[in-house]
Amino acid sequence: MIHVDRDSQIPLMEQIVSQFAGLIQDGQLPPGTRLPSIRKLASMLTVSAATVVGAYDRLTARGLIESRAASGYFVALVRQHLPRLPRPAASRVEIDAIGLMRGLLRRAEGLTAVGSGYLPAQWLEDMVNTRLLARVARKGKRFYAQPAAPEGYPPLRNQLALKLGMMGIPASPDHLLTTFGVTHGFDLICRALLSPGETVAVEEPAYFGLYAQLRSHGIKLVGVPRLANGPDLAILDQVCETHRPRLFFTQTLLHNPTGGSIDAANAFQLLELAHRHGFMIVEDDVYGDLHSMANPLRLAQVDRLERVIFLASFSKVMSPAIRVGYMAAAPHLIELFLDQKLLSVLTTSEFDERLVHELLSDGSYRKHLERLRPRLSHSRASAVRGLRDAGLEPTLESEGGLFIWAALPEKTDLQALAEDAASNGFLLTPGDAFFLCQPQRPMLRFSAAAANDERLFEYFRKRLPLLTDIRSGLKV
Amino acid sequence: MIHVDRDSQIPLMEQIVSQFAGLIQDGQLPPGTRLPSIRKLASMLTVSAATVVGAYDRLTARGLIESRAASGYFVALVRQHLPRLPRPAASRVEIDAIGLMRGLLRRAEGLTAVGSGYLPAQWLEDMVNTRLLARVARKGKRFYAQPAAPEGYPPLRNQLALKLGMMGIPASPDHLLTTFGVTHGFDLICRALLSPGETVAVEEPAYFGLYAQLRSHGIKLVGVPRLANGPDLAILDQVCETHRPRLFFTQTLLHNPTGGSIDAANAFQLLELAHRHGFMIVEDDVYGDLHSMANPLRLAQVDRLERVIFLASFSKVMSPAIRVGYMAAAPHLIELFLDQKLLSVLTTSEFDERLVHELLSDGSYRKHLERLRPRLSHSRASAVRGLRDAGLEPTLESEGGLFIWAALPEKTDLQALAEDAASNGFLLTPGDAFFLCQPQRPMLRFSAAAANDERLFEYFRKRLPLLTDIRSGLKV
Repeated sequence: MIHVDRDSQIPLMEQIVSQFAGLIQDGQLPPGTRLPSIRKLASMLTVSAATVVGAYDRLTARGLIESRAASGYFVALVRQHLPRLPRPAASRVEIDAIGLMRGLLRRAEGLTAVGSGYLPAQWLEDMVNTRLLARVARKGKRFYAQPAAPEGYPPLRNQLALKLGMMGIPASPDHLLTTFGVTHGFDLICRALLSPGETVAVEEPAYFGLYAQLRSHGIKLVGVPRLANGPDLAILDQVCETHRPRLFFTQTLLHNPTGGSIDAANAFQLLELAHRHGFMIVEDDVYGDLHSMANPLRLAQVDRLERVIFLASFSKVMSPAIRVGYMAAAPHLIELFLDQKLLSVLTTSEFDERLVHELLSDGSYRKHLERLRPRLSHSRASAVRGLRDAGLEPTLESEGGLFIWAALPEKTDLQALAEDAASNGFLLTPGDAFFLCQPQRPMLRFSAAAANDERLFEYFRKRLPLLTDIRSGLKV
Repeated sequence: MIHVDRDSQIPLMEQIVSQFAGLIQDGQLPPGTRLPSIRKLASMLTVSAATVVGAYDRLTARGLIESRAASGYFVALVRQHLPRLPRPAASRVEIDAIGLMRGLLRRAEGLTAVGSGYLPAQWLEDMVNTRLLARVARKGKRFYAQPAAPEGYPPLRNQLALKLGMMGIPASPDHLLTTFGVTHGFDLICRALLSPGETVAVEEPAYFGLYAQLRSHGIKLVGVPRLANGPDLAILDQVCETHRPRLFFTQTLLHNPTGGSIDAANAFQLLELAHRHGFMIVEDDVYGDLHSMANPLRLAQVDRLERVIFLASFSKVMSPAIRVGYMAAAPHLIELFLDQKLLSVLTTSEFDERLVHELLSDGSYRKHLERLRPRLSHSRASAVRGLRDAGLEPTLESEGGLFIWAALPEKTDLQALAEDAASNGFLLTPGDAFFLCQPQRPMLRFSAAAANDERLFEYFRKRLPLLTDIRSGLKV
């Protein structure tokens, strides 16, 4: 009943698996039927015994057959049928924080996420590959059999200390703790330093996931406008007088969503304010490595990790499938964060951390960035031009990085636009989610990489005039 | 100044890196010195240009040299010196929860963790290897360049649904969410279902990390004694009348630390209590795959994932360096846990999840378990015998699994014993941490794998009689 085709592209083992699976699922091989022995099937098909063993192992793992001690393989008596649950009908496009996070992370829904915070897959293809994996596997014979050090893989922490040193931030491994990414780092900060009901200051606009995360810990948020050169410090000063925030969360470089970076004057005055009012600063550097300057100014560089807690990650620029981030802070704070790391996830993945260590220490990551920056800058210029020609108003055109923050005609109904765009194949990232209150103008965040797309420009060229005519909002 | 030894075991690239590093660190190549061009050094040493490029990349990543556009490589002007922080003096052996977690996770401190909850490294060496990594890397060309699906890698969720089905627990992928391990799953439960000040019931003894984690969320704990056949249900009934706990946390199989498993009568009555009092059950199955029975009874099997939230992980039995666990629960609960997953870590590591998927679906994991169980059972029998001969009293000898729970002579000072053992090379896991209140007898948890050690038996043989003479406590 089974035959193999040696000219096929499909490996012999898989051919055997799929034919048996078909016969079992069709009922041609009923439950309890004895399968040929390994030796017999191997000789019938003139394949190796190892091929039959592998096929039977895979059929067993799928629950289709079972082995009985000393008597061979049989079609399983009880078949596993996965219960089918009713799927919720396709709902409206969610533009709240969690809805956006889910939408931006789900693949294969046929939508192009033109506002994604991730680089396109083909921009990262020089990073992880079979040779790298083989090298990492050879280096640590039994590393996978031991838990990670609680603070993170020690050679990675050394390499990160060097990386920070080259950025002008003096750090020893004792200043460093690995995390599963910046989101995880924010979580450790909330757990270690904040209690429900306490107040923190955040930028407006800022990453919607941060707002949702802080709120989930019962933290009160006060917004400080983000201007072209950094947060509005006059307002931050007032906010401090009134609300006494414990922490201020900021993204110094290539800010999400505006794309702007803090200038030196703003940085120094911000640190001075922190000193005067006694708050600490959480500096999120998740996109900083994309900055086109060799050594752009970061708060942690001026402050030397006294009032600044610095967070970064390799998920955005190296590989989103590998979850490695880190925090740099004063050692007594790192101890507090470590306790919370143990209590939230126990340890991080030494496996992933060894991959990142290898990419950092063999120079691959540096070269990757050197290729990435001009590519991004070129794509950014085209995207800005295309969006402007299509009737949007991109802000902060001169800055580099991943994000383009663009204004739409006033009174655009973002919900209607998001749904219309989705029905045309584009997942938008509406600006409202980046604000605590309703913003003055309807905005969209774009990815300089993904939004450089003639079809997207064409979509806006067709839709936005319609909108300008109606004036009272987009009805499509 | 540089020469290579072709007969050496050390790769040529590494020889070049270490010689340059030495010359730079000794000051023989002062800052600003120009290095030979790639072509020149390659021809001087008769090595390939790629070898020199690789060496220069590694020296750059270490901050020792820098490349200047179009003019070559130079010794770095600013050297990175890692700031040295004063290390705290070696402190007392910590036997609180966080101290124990840190101690059990830190390696290379020269202590043998005879009570470790992890299997010894050499017991897991058949799991992750270069061939597996190469296979996973080939299967998904660009998978590392995209973020993981928020619910977890879909083929892994399918495979887990099959695994649960074979365990008699009916689950579809919609019942499943991947996590970074069981600790992470507990965290999602606390965030999604509990508020500070609420009460849950826990077993006594139970895993100290769970107590610390629940307390860190402001949850009140009420203890229920764990008996040989499961939790003391008469006391749980009283606890429900008095405290109305929202959840009850239990480890059905191979309980940590006692090693016992719930019997069928206890399981059915426990579920009946849950129904009557309206609490949910969190079933932690982190060691269940080590059970020697083909299909031991789990609560989720009887309950069919209505009142039971089921958690498990591959960190303990497959690889602690890969962080993959999962939760199975009613789909409306999974939605709540998914929101909290996004808000705590954004996504898990698709990389790690693909490795686990491969090991589950090609039959490697099943075969690994088939080798592991008799090995553990054999080691367990020897360890129990050795500990008893040395004067300890192991409980529940007939059960399998990783843990041996042993009583010490009364009035043993556990703190003093732990420090004495540490100075003899053994990291103990004192029993007090597994209780909410001081237990009646001093206990120790042992690993059936690590405690099968003649040196350990010898240590106790020498020390325990001393203790029995003094009676008022061990003074060493």
